[in-house]
Order: sequence, then structure tokens, then C-alpha cells
Amino acid sequence: MFLASPSKGYTLKENPKRRIEPCPKKNSKNVNTILGKDNHMTMKAFQDYYSETFASCFGCGRLNEHGLHIKSYWDGEESVCRFKPKHYHTGGFPENVYGGLIASLMDCHGAGTAYAATHLKNGSNIDTDPASRYVTAALHVDYLAPTPMNESLELRGKVKEIRGRKVIVSMTLSVKETVCAKGEVVMVRIPEASVS
Amino acid sequence: MFLASPSKGYTLKENPKRRIEPCPKKNSKNVNTILGKDNHMTMKAFQDYYSETFASCFGCGRLNEHGLHIKSYWDGEESVCRFKPKHYHTGGFPENVYGGLIASLMDCHGAGTAYAATHLKNGSNIDTDPASRYVTAALHVDYLAPTPMNESLELRGKVKEIRGRKVIVSMTLSVKETVCAKGEVVMVRIPEASVS
Repeated sequence: MFLASPSKGYTLKENPKRRIEPCPKKNSKNVNTILGKDNHMTMKAFQDYYSETFASCFGCGRLNEHGLHIKSYWDGEESVCRFKPKHYHTGGFPENVYGGLIASLMDCHGAGTAYAATHLKNGSNIDTDPASRYVTAALHVDYLAPTPMNESLELRGKVKEIRGRKVIVSMTLSVKETVCAKGEVVMVRIPEASVS
Repeated sequence: MFLASPSKGYTLKENPKRRIEPCPKKNSKNVNTILGKDNHMTMKAFQDYYSETFASCFGCGRLNEHGLHIKSYWDGEESVCRFKPKHYHTGGFPENVYGGLIASLMDCHGAGTAYAATHLKNGSNIDTDPASRYVTAALHVDYLAPTPMNESLELRGKVKEIRGRKVIVSMTLSVKETVCAKGEVVMVRIPEASVS
């Protein structure tokens, strides 16, 4: 079992073969340069490593011209994704973000986190070693507070468990330090033969 | 508590003040005329009754030019929504539908079902009586099988419970009789003062 908590089991820091460098901690000096305010990342995201076969996802595929282009990165022990909704991503109340978009962000950020965490656990090189792609088995979202429009949304993910082919990722979605939603995904790794 | 099951408590059929006519049963003679194959409905959907204030939702708002325009109707004791994904609504595997879209469909179909079921329970007139709008408190989706692209998706909803301001709707998403996903939403009614 893989636990992201530093106090239990395998942690990101303890892996000597770690190949994916995390983003700096949130409060470090140059975090805004790297993470940007509107998801203007300057480093390669988890999703940028997906093979072309899997790069057409509406949520996170770099080759989907109409897609959301969700990008996820390590930030210390957590994964982070920043996303600025388009003006039309409104919910029932036009001043709030659409709940389906929030679920979509959690789906792709959870999948990306599972992918990157597997590489870390295995000590494999994300640039050269075979990809480990995941599909979503279950998605749960609790909407805790309205998510305001015209703001950058910050998703943070933690790997709760890696066991066999299954990875569970818990997430929060925040705006300016206010947690607006919490979620959890259960991702299942696709057999290697299906990924090539 | 409101139970959609004919065998328990309040049912749609038992309400003498019923004002929203259901669609015909799925196997009835003219169901295809009314429901169409690609969501080409000829009758007014739940979402068409929403006031302009709430018609901007990306998922189901008729006034959102960029939105999905999800439409829900009664079909006997169940609510039904048919939706044909756009060519770009692909998931990790390009031949399958994006999981975030499935979550979005369940979010809006669940909200619409909660709205319409409240009118039925109260015996109120959906054309003239005050609206009862809902926000999503929780959304859960279990992805049971890949959902193929280039097909019409059929969502079916059942009201599991109405208690106070809360409505729970369980749903399935099927393609040609195969259930590809199951879901459940917990919707909470907005206080009347917020709806005007």
C-alpha cells in the first residue's frame, strides 16, 4: 500500500529513484513564477507525458482542440492543478462555477496524479519508461460552498492509497484559501497491453 | 419522505393534482416520436421551465450558447435524458466518452429531476407556481463499462428520497441497453427568497 503521508509507509521523498521533480512548496519564493496565477505553467505537466493515443481526452488531452487542457504538477507531497474557468462555465447561479466542470477537473487531476504517483512509487523514468495509464472507476464530489466565477481554481490532490492496480486520490478545490469542494476518485490502471 | 417506488409512500401516479404529463412508457407506440433518437424532443423539458436567472447553466441552461443543453423529461415513473456527445467529448481512450461529461450529465439530469419531482409532490403547477431550484450537495458516479462514442446516451433517473429540502436521485447511463455508469446526486433546495 502506498501512503502519501510522510509518517506512514512509502512517501514521495523517500524514493531514491525519484525522477519527477516537484514544484516548490506553495509558500516558497518562486512558486508564482512556476505555477502562475492562471495556470501558466512553464514546466512539463503530468498530462504532457501521455502518449498521443491518450492525448485526446476532453479534460486533459493536449491534442483535443476543444478540451479543457487540465495540467497537473507536483507541489511537494501534493499534486496541484490551477484552472481558470471560461466565462461560460457557469452553474445554476451565473456567478458560480458549474458543478459538472468541478467534477471534470477532479476526474482528470485524479487520473494524472495516479499516473505520476505510480512512476514515483516504481522509481521509473516518466520520460522513457512505459506509461501507466488509468481509467476512472468511481468519482465522488462534495460541494461545500459556491465556487465563484472569475477566479483561479486550485485543485490539490493527495494519494490516499496505491494497492495493486488501484489508486485512490483525494482532492480539494479552493479559491483564495476557501475550500469549495472536496472529492475522491478511484482510478484503475489499464493493463500494459492496452496502453501501447 | 417521497418514494418513487409505486409500492411505497407517495408515487407520481397517486398525486391527483399532477400537472406535468409524463412521456409515454419506453415501449409505447409513439415514444420515439416524442423522445427522438438524438434528444430531438418536441415537448417542453424540465429545464425549459427554469427562470432566465437560472438558464445560464453550462450543463442545462437554454441561454448558455456554449453549453450542453441537457433536457430531461418524465417517462412514466422515471426521468429520462438523451444526449449525443460531440465528436470532441472523448475520454482517455478516444473511442470512449469522457467521464467528466458523464458526471456533468448526471449533475444536471439529477437537478432537473429533483425540480420536477418537487412540483409533482406538492401538486403545484410548473407553468405558474414558484420555481423550486436545487443546488448539488454531492455527486457520485460509478463507471461500470466504457461508454462508446457516436451513440446516443440514455440517462434514467429515479427519485430515491425527498425529505425536507433534500432530494436524492439515483441514475443510470446506458447505451443500447448496456448500463455503462450508475450515479447518485444529493440535491438541496434553495430557499425561496434566493430564487426570485
